[in-house]
Amino acid sequence: MNDCLFCKIINGDIPSYTVYEDDKVKAFLDVNPNSDGHVLVIPKEHYENLFETQNEIIIYMIDTIKTKIYPILKEKLNIDGLTICQNNYYGQDVKHFHIHLIPRYNGDSFKCSFDKNEVSDVKDVYEKLKAE
Amino acid sequence: MNDCLFCKIINGDIPSYTVYEDDKVKAFLDVNPNSDGHVLVIPKEHYENLFETQNEIIIYMIDTIKTKIYPILKEKLNIDGLTICQNNYYGQDVKHFHIHLIPRYNGDSFKCSFDKNEVSDVKDVYEKLKAE
Repeated sequence: MNDCLFCKIINGDIPSYTVYEDDKVKAFLDVNPNSDGHVLVIPKEHYENLFETQNEIIIYMIDTIKTKIYPILKEKLNIDGLTICQNNYYGQDVKHFHIHLIPRYNGDSFKCSFDKNEVSDVKDVYEKLKAE
Repeated sequence: MNDCLFCKIINGDIPSYTVYEDDKVKAFLDVNPNSDGHVLVIPKEHYENLFETQNEIIIYMIDTIKTKIYPILKEKLNIDGLTICQNNYYGQDVKHFHIHLIPRYNGDSFKCSFDKNEVSDVKDVYEKLKAE
């Protein structure tokens, strides 16, 4: 898509720190990293989010993470863990399907959280989910 | 596995707030939620993490999220977005492969972050990744 940041990166119109690339997938460093080696994995075809992307492309990306990208991060950066994140609709910045790979390091300060006052009691949420 | 918390939930030895279940997959509310409707999706067979789990099981879980679980969260809780997270090795609490579904709400306070002093310059990380 003409106005898509990630399509421009795929086309080479915007430079990127490429970590892995083949004919279907590109992986490059996030320039606003959560941790050292924070990688974005994207399909070369434009899909807006997980729900628009065909399953065969999703599993190809996941297999590439398992067999190609994780081994690079492990070997070169000696990472201790891998947190994978993917945002859809509200919370998704660039509207081109992308998977965040966030390397973890022993004793790191990583946190994923909401303010606690925004979270309801689990039982109350369950009642809503089970309501007809 | 005998001593696995999630296997005990699958077997019914520990109760859970089940959101969706079939012969391969179970989805239930996280009792320490990041947000309202925070769901854990697990395979019924025990695999430790993403790297141990067969691709056909992973894509079955993802398809179930897309076509079965997300629609429930959207309809019942009117969520505005869905952040999907999955931890491996360091950072993974229960050693049974699980996918976090974290509903997002317009204007929420959700943050995923490290302390900034733990993060290096992207160029320096790229040099390490490209070193022979």
